Amino acid sequence: MIIDCHGHFTTAPPALGKWRERQIAAFEESGARVSPDELRIHDDELRDAIEQGQLKLQRERGTDLTLFSPGAGKMAHHYGDAETSLVWSRVSNDLIARVCDLFPDRFAPVCQLPQSPGAALAGSVRASAAELERCVGELGFVGCLLNPDPSDGYWQAPPLTDRVYYPLYEKMVELDVPAMVHVAMSRNDAVQGTCAHYLNGDTAVFMQLCESDLFRDFPTLRLILPHGGGAVPYHWGRYRGMMLDRGRPPLEEALLGNVFFDTCVYHRRGLELLTDVIPAANVLFASEMIGAVRSVDPETGHRFDDTLAQLDAIGSITPEDRGAIYGGNALRVFPRLRDRINHHEQQREAAR
Amino acid sequence: MIIDCHGHFTTAPPALGKWRERQIAAFEESGARVSPDELRIHDDELRDAIEQGQLKLQRERGTDLTLFSPGAGKMAHHYGDAETSLVWSRVSNDLIARVCDLFPDRFAPVCQLPQSPGAALAGSVRASAAELERCVGELGFVGCLLNPDPSDGYWQAPPLTDRVYYPLYEKMVELDVPAMVHVAMSRNDAVQGTCAHYLNGDTAVFMQLCESDLFRDFPTLRLILPHGGGAVPYHWGRYRGMMLDRGRPPLEEALLGNVFFDTCVYHRRGLELLTDVIPAANVLFASEMIGAVRSVDPETGHRFDDTLAQLDAIGSITPEDRGAIYGGNALRVFPRLRDRINHHEQQREAAR
Repeated sequence: MIIDCHGHFTTAPPALGKWRERQIAAFEESGARVSPDELRIHDDELRDAIEQGQLKLQRERGTDLTLFSPGAGKMAHHYGDAETSLVWSRVSNDLIARVCDLFPDRFAPVCQLPQSPGAALAGSVRASAAELERCVGELGFVGCLLNPDPSDGYWQAPPLTDRVYYPLYEKMVELDVPAMVHVAMSRNDAVQGTCAHYLNGDTAVFMQLCESDLFRDFPTLRLILPHGGGAVPYHWGRYRGMMLDRGRPPLEEALLGNVFFDTCVYHRRGLELLTDVIPAANVLFASEMIGAVRSVDPETGHRFDDTLAQLDAIGSITPEDRGAIYGGNALRVFPRLRDRINHHEQQREAAR
Repeated sequence: MIIDCHGHFTTAPPALGKWRERQIAAFEESGARVSPDELRIHDDELRDAIEQGQLKLQRERGTDLTLFSPGAGKMAHHYGDAETSLVWSRVSNDLIARVCDLFPDRFAPVCQLPQSPGAALAGSVRASAAELERCVGELGFVGCLLNPDPSDGYWQAPPLTDRVYYPLYEKMVELDVPAMVHVAMSRNDAVQGTCAHYLNGDTAVFMQLCESDLFRDFPTLRLILPHGGGAVPYHWGRYRGMMLDRGRPPLEEALLGNVFFDTCVYHRRGLELLTDVIPAANVLFASEMIGAVRSVDPETGHRFDDTLAQLDAIGSITPEDRGAIYGGNALRVFPRLRDRINHHEQQREAAR
């Protein structure tokens, strides 16, 4: 089973974006709220969006299941206030739940969290724990996205290792769900979103983790760094040396029981480095389709984000490691995913 | 000739740091200035610092010459005001000039610029052009460091492609000197300096350049991205695809006539990727010693920052490419370096 651990609902029907625009505008103009009930999207629209988009590509590429979350850039936690963020998260997550219930064999839901920057941070972490509980307990979600920069491009919050985040980590541990650490949009003209802020977020957070003992406090907490871990595997020696300089334990011991990297690296050379440097147990297959890069690579004839085709071409990966990277690790890192798959298989059996 | 294009005076005598502390404290307390005349460092102290530090490692490793600049983190452009930054730059640059005059065969000077964040930005760019002219014209400098984030960790300035920076680029083109784009310290708890902000700066600036036509306005402007270009070569496919998505020219055409990457990547796998993905004409040997990482890698027996030993071990680099990477490219990118080398050789000849 080939599991893509990183897919966003980038093809959501336009009504979603329009509702969000109204939500932001109403708050900015007068502090007014827009009701979630004003958003109407029919199941047929969801089916169309998925069947012509992610499901079509899943079939073309031969992947089986995608861990599916709201558009990451669209989380945009800096807009409005804590209530804005909470309502938007619920709207987004409810839509993801509907998609995954329409295609239970193909998509499993991962939620966004109602984070907020500035003075609202601590309260928003508690609200995030509550929304995570709702999504996992009531809607069958298997993981969450955690934004390390709710200011959206200016890094105004403390590191993710700060105790302010502990209520969320306690809930994640209790529910046994991991987080993909994923920034949202950048509203900073100096730092573009998908090709700068995204990668920089991954890199910054890895270093936050290197400098802390977060996993001593939460030995079973699991975090996935997307986009191949930003700059980290390419600079693995820098991090190894820094840990030695500081008298810290090796990266394997300090971090690799808890930190995982996805394979959203859009060329073969990069994927070779990733799978060569990072132990196979810490690499999770992902494409982030349909996402940041959509073209076909004229050098390969495959889309840049068709990471499966590129991984397939790397002969140095052993069959055992390939099984782990393509799906085994995802089932281990997202234990509720196996429960969900089993549940839907039983439902299908019963329906026969 | 093996030229290390990236060395900072991290071993400067403690008097320098103490003067800087007094400068910052006096300004913060009462807006007072501390005179550069209060800083006294003897030539013997400089000789000791270099002979026990960078020169010793040059000899051990077999490198010939280092492009030598003030400590990058110590530039710390956010402190004080424009005058603070100007005086500190002159103090730092004058010291670099002295080191390079003491060891003219071993070190060639690269200056820091008196940049400032916020409202002082535009004026500080003009002051930077003037300081560059002083350093190059009067002191024989061959290049400069350009900080893309004078706010030191919060990215408050426009991108380096903004017209506010054009007076500096005009001066760089006129003087035919390149800039290494190098952030200074990070005062942001969420983004550590050497292992996050440094790499993120390189990545953010590469993307700024991808999005602009800066090199149409300045066809001979040359910028070096240190630390192996941050995350860029590892994510080369992402950038190639993004340019295609946007209908922009290929990276080779848009950027590689003007943008260069150094080899400060502290493990062999990373250097293999760098030299495999980036054309040899765009890669400049560098170690950043004595810098961010100082330990010996127990896996290789070499220091992590001994990038020469690691490059030597990569058999796939052709002799011609190796010559370009190890020194030929530096002589091309820093044309004043050859003039300086020739000048000192003539002086030595005349003295015989």
